[in-house]
Amino acid sequence: MSAPSAPKTSPGNFFEDFRLGQQIRHATPRTVSVGDVALYQGLFGGRFAVQSSDIFAQNIGFPKAPIDDLLVFHIVFGKTVPDISLNAVANLGYADCRFLKPVYPGSTLNAVSEIIGLKENSNKKTGIVYVRSRGFDDAGDAVLDYVRWVMVRKRDETAPAPGEEVPELQKSVEPARLGGSCPKINGPAYDNVLAGSSHRFGDYKVGEKIDHVDGVTVEYRSAPQASTTGCCTRSNVITDGSSASTSTPVSTAISSPPVSTATCRSSRSWPSTTRSDRSTTSPRSRRRSAPLRPRRCSTATPCRLRAGSICASYGRTST
Amino acid sequence: MSAPSAPKTSPGNFFEDFRLGQQIRHATPRTVSVGDVALYQGLFGGRFAVQSSDIFAQNIGFPKAPIDDLLVFHIVFGKTVPDISLNAVANLGYADCRFLKPVYPGSTLNAVSEIIGLKENSNKKTGIVYVRSRGFDDAGDAVLDYVRWVMVRKRDETAPAPGEEVPELQKSVEPARLGGSCPKINGPAYDNVLAGSSHRFGDYKVGEKIDHVDGVTVEYRSAPQASTTGCCTRSNVITDGSSASTSTPVSTAISSPPVSTATCRSSRSWPSTTRSDRSTTSPRSRRRSAPLRPRRCSTATPCRLRAGSICASYGRTST
Amino acid sequence: MSAPSAPKTSPGNFFEDFRLGQQIRHATPRTVSVGDVALYQGLFGGRFAVQSSDIFAQNIGFPKAPIDDLLVFHIVFGKTVPDISLNAVANLGYADCRFLKPVYPGSTLNAVSEIIGLKENSNKKTGIVYVRSRGFDDAGDAVLDYVRWVMVRKRDETAPAPGEEVPELQKSVEPARLGGSCPKINGPAYDNVLAGSSHRFGDYKVGEKIDHVDGVTVEYRSAPQASTTGCCTRSNVITDGSSASTSTPVSTAISSPPVSTATCRSSRSWPSTTRSDRSTTSPRSRRRSAPLRPRRCSTATPCRLRAGSICASYGRTST
Repeated sequence: MSAPSAPKTSPGNFFEDFRLGQQIRHATPRTVSVGDVALYQGLFGGRFAVQSSDIFAQNIGFPKAPIDDLLVFHIVFGKTVPDISLNAVANLGYADCRFLKPVYPGSTLNAVSEIIGLKENSNKKTGIVYVRSRGFDDAGDAVLDYVRWVMVRKRDETAPAPGEEVPELQKSVEPARLGGSCPKINGPAYDNVLAGSSHRFGDYKVGEKIDHVDGVTVEYRSAPQASTTGCCTRSNVITDGSSASTSTPVSTAISSPPVSTATCRSSRSWPSTTRSDRSTTSPRSRRRSAPLRPRRCSTATPCRLRAGSICASYGRTST
Repeated sequence: MSAPSAPKTSPGNFFEDFRLGQQIRHATPRTVSVGDVALYQGLFGGRFAVQSSDIFAQNIGFPKAPIDDLLVFHIVFGKTVPDISLNAVANLGYADCRFLKPVYPGSTLNAVSEIIGLKENSNKKTGIVYVRSRGFDDAGDAVLDYVRWVMVRKRDETAPAPGEEVPELQKSVEPARLGGSCPKINGPAYDNVLAGSSHRFGDYKVGEKIDHVDGVTVEYRSAPQASTTGCCTRSNVITDGSSASTSTPVSTAISSPPVSTATCRSSRSWPSTTRSDRSTTSPRSRRRSAPLRPRRCSTATPCRLRAGSICASYGRTST
Repeated sequence: MSAPSAPKTSPGNFFEDFRLGQQIRHATPRTVSVGDVALYQGLFGGRFAVQSSDIFAQNIGFPKAPIDDLLVFHIVFGKTVPDISLNAVANLGYADCRFLKPVYPGSTLNAVSEIIGLKENSNKKTGIVYVRSRGFDDAGDAVLDYVRWVMVRKRDETAPAPGEEVPELQKSVEPARLGGSCPKINGPAYDNVLAGSSHRFGDYKVGEKIDHVDGVTVEYRSAPQASTTGCCTRSNVITDGSSASTSTPVSTAISSPPVSTATCRSSRSWPSTTRSDRSTTSPRSRRRSAPLRPRRCSTATPCRLRAGSICASYGRTST
C-alpha cells in the first residue's frame, strides 16, 4: 500500500485508443424501476396510454405497461458515454436504430458496443468513431440496437490513426426490421378516446408537416457568468451536421417509417407557455398569432437530427 | 394516403363547442406508481404519516399507505384539461369536492366529466363552463368527484351561446358526505408522536387562524426576457375572483369541514428560507421579526381559492 | 371547542429545552420506495453497480439492490431536524457514523435520538447540543447510528443552561465496527468492468489525493433580490468550523477507514460542465487547463466536513 496508486478517475478513451472491431462492455447495469419511469414522464412529458396504463397495455396485448422506448434508449446510450464519448467534440449522427424487445419495470439493462468504423480528420486533432451499441436485458436478450458516430479528440496529435474504415450505413430502417419491441396487438381493443388521439398509421403521410403547438419552455441558465453566445440559430441547428450538437439528439416524435427528414422546432419563448399552465395564463390565440422569435437554445435542448439517422419506433398504434 | 390529412394537434374545445349534459371521457389512463408518489412528496413536501408509512397506515386500518388525496386530485384534474380548459382564460372555482375511495400505488385512474352549466359572458368573447369531473379506478369505482367552473374563450364571437344554465352549487360540503376515502380508523393506534402532531379534530375551531411558518421559496423564472410585470399582489390574489388565476388552485391545507374562507399566504422571499435548509442558514427569530415583503408570484404559485369552493379532505385524524 | 386553541405550528426546541439523557422519537416514519431511489439517483448522480442493479447485487450476495447508505442517512437525518435543529445556528459536526443493516425498497424507516451532551456558549445566546441519532427499520433493527453536534439558539437568554456535559467522541471509526450494512460478499463475482472501476480496497492508500474531475454545476438562485454576498470562499468553507454550514454536510466520497481529513472541492463554474453533457459541449482539455475560478456557493452545496467526523461507509468493494 505504499506504492504510488493508480489515478482513480478515468480520462476516457481518445481517438487513437479505439480499434476496429473492438468490443466494449459498459458499466453500470441498472434495474429500471417505476421510479425511473415516473421521473422520465415528469421530465419529458410523454403521455402515451400504452406506457402510462397497465390496463390499457393489457387490453391490447402487453402483459403490463412497457417502459417508453426512448427511456430505454437514454439508459443504454448513457452507459456508452464514459467509454465512447468522454472526449467527444461533436455528436454527429445515429442510424439503424431498432427497439427489439419490450422492457418492463424490474428489468436490468446493460450495454455493449463494437467499434465499426474509424476515420481521422485532416487536422489530425480529431477523428470520427463509428460505434454499434446494443442494450441487453437480464435474460441476455437484445432490447436495442443502433449505430452512432461521434467526433473524438486525440490525446496526442502525432499518434498514428488507429485505422481507416467508414461503414456503409442505411439511409433508413426498413419497416420489416422494426416492431420487435411490440407484441402482436389487439387492434380493435385500442381505445382512441383513452389514447387521446384518433390518428392511426394510415392517417399519416410522407412529407406531412405536423405543428406541435405549445412547447415546453427551456429554462435559461441563471448563473451570472452564463453566456448567451454560442446559442444555435434555427437554421444551423437543422442543417449543419458538422457543428457541435447538444446533449440529447433524439427526437421524441413518432413517425411512420421510413422517414428521411427531421425538423427541429423552436419552443416559443413566452414566459409561461408550458403545457400545464397554458389553460389559465396564456390565451391560445395570442400565442398562435405571435411571430416566432429567434430560437435560443440551452444545452438541454434536443435540437439536431441528421436526415436518415432517425431513431424510428412504431407499434404504438396498431395497423 | 394521398388525401390531405387531418390536423394532428387538437385545438381544444371552445365555449361554443360545449353542450349541456355532454359527457366527456378523458385521455390518458394512468397507473399510479410509488415513483409518482415519490415525485409528489419531493415536490410538494407532504409528510403525512399515513401516506408516508405502510406500517403506520396498517396500524390504523389501511391495507397500506394510500396515495395522497391531492395527488389523486392533480392526476384526475390534469386529465380534464385537454378537453375542458385548453382555451381557458381564467380558472374560477371549485365546489363539492369529495374523495370517495382510497387509491393505492398500482391503481389505474381515468377521468370522466359532465357539462352541468354554461353561461356566456356579456362581451360575447368568452363564457363560463361548469363541469362535474369524476375520477375512477380500474375497478370502475369513483375515487373523486368535484365541480369546477372556468372561463373559456369562444372560437367565433358571432357563434350563438351553446346554452344558458347556472347550476346551484353548495356553499360547503356536508360532513356526512365526506370520508369515503378513509376506512374506519383504529383511533387509539394513531401515534401522535410518529404523526408529528398532537392536534386532533377537536383541537381545531371555525375561524381559527393558523400561521404556517416557513414557506417554500418559489423560484423566479430566470430567462432574460422574463417579465416581472403581471405578478400578483397579496390583495388581488385573494379577493379578485375574476382575474386570471395561476395553475394549481388547490390548497394543501387540511381543514375541519365545513370551511368557508381560504387565505393565501406569501412565502417570504428570503434567499434561503426553504424548510430543508432553515435549520442552518436562517435563525428563526430573524425571519419572524422581519417585515413581510410584497409578494411576487411566479406562475407556479398556488394562490387563489374562492370562498365556499374548497376541496375538503378529512380522515387523516381520527375522531 | 370555543376555548383558544393551541398553536398548530411547532416552534421547535431551543437550547434550554433539551435535557441530558433525553430520548426523542421523531416523526414521520417513511416507507422507502424505488421512487425515492430514482429521485436520489437523479439528484445525486450515484451510479454504484450494487445499488443500481438487482442482478449485480444478487451475484455478490445481496438479496437485491440495497438502498444507498447515504439515502438512508438523509432520510434518518431529515427526521431529526424538526426536533433537534429547527433553531440551529450552525451545524458543527458528525462522528461515529455507522451503517448497521442493509435497507431495501419497501422498508419503513423511523428515527430516535438521545441527547448525550450540552454546552452553553459564553455569549449565553446559544449552546451546543450533542445528539446520538439512530434509524430503525420496520423489524425494529437499527440500520444507522451516528453522533451529531449542532449550535442551537436559546429562546430566553436569561434561562439557565440545561446542563453541561461534553461527550468524548472518537476521532475515527474503527474498521472492526464497520460493515454491518454489507453481507459477506462473494468477491470473485464482483465484476470490475460492470462496476466501472478496477480499483479495490488495496488500491487506495492513506493520504492519497483523488481529483474528482468534472463536478456538477450548482445552479445559482435566480431571484432578482438574491444576494451574492454571503457566498463562501474556498478557504473558509473548509477550515472555519464555527461558521454556519450549508444544508447537507455529508460527503459522498467513499474512503478507506479510518480517515481524518476531508476536502471540499469546488465545482468549476463553467456554463455547462455537468457530467451528462460534457462529452458534446466541453472538450476535456479546455476545462482542465482553465484556471479555477473563485468558488461561489449556493445554499444547496454540501461543502463542509470536520476532521474526524466523516461518515465512513465501506463494503462496496470486496476485500
